[in-house]
Amino acid sequence: MSVEAVTAANQAFYDAFEARDLGLMTDVWERSDRVLCTHPGWPTLHGWDAVMQSWDSLLRGPQHLQFILTNAVVTVHDTVGWVTVDENLLDRGTGSTVAALNMFVFDGERWRLVAHHGSGVAG
Amino acid sequence: MSVEAVTAANQAFYDAFEARDLGLMTDVWERSDRVLCTHPGWPTLHGWDAVMQSWDSLLRGPQHLQFILTNAVVTVHDTVGWVTVDENLLDRGTGSTVAALNMFVFDGERWRLVAHHGSGVAG
Repeated sequence: MSVEAVTAANQAFYDAFEARDLGLMTDVWERSDRVLCTHPGWPTLHGWDAVMQSWDSLLRGPQHLQFILTNAVVTVHDTVGWVTVDENLLDRGTGSTVAALNMFVFDGERWRLVAHHGSGVAG
Repeated sequence: MSVEAVTAANQAFYDAFEARDLGLMTDVWERSDRVLCTHPGWPTLHGWDAVMQSWDSLLRGPQHLQFILTNAVVTVHDTVGWVTVDENLLDRGTGSTVAALNMFVFDGERWRLVAHHGSGVAG
């Protein structure tokens, strides 16, 4: 059941990304200063303000990303769950793949995203 | 105390890497099929055999890496700990930085590495 809930939380992250909806995106993340996010090629961002500012910029940006998610592997250990997944991006006719690691913490009610790390796979 | 122990486990990972010592490296990791490793630009590798095979190749390879680790941030939640750190690589006179996320699980005695994700920071 935890695996299913983490899988759903992970899907909600990509749904928010694809919908370019900052409200949905903020709802996916744990509202704390321990959240962290490493976008492909970026240095690691720490804390709610820096991470959400990056999403605000990305979701307002010119890229309209569509994801085909493959190879999702979900692991749960106590109240922490993590997912590796390949983000296959379809953008203006060119394709690329980002290998992602997403970590979630159970807050007693829901699984919240605490870390996202994506990196481009050399093609 | 957990933060200190996770910090030490993280340092042991980089010590094994720098020493090019596969024995030390295997000792750092949890011996399981849920371990995963994403080297910069690589697809995600899953499971003990695939991950250790990659380290065997890397540690035997021509690159002699020296790390200057900066900006380490350690978080512990229950029996899971994670570290973000910048790996500043000194290799043949050129420098580069890899943003890393390392996850550890406490096995009742020690913190074992279960996930390593590194990605190059665009310079």
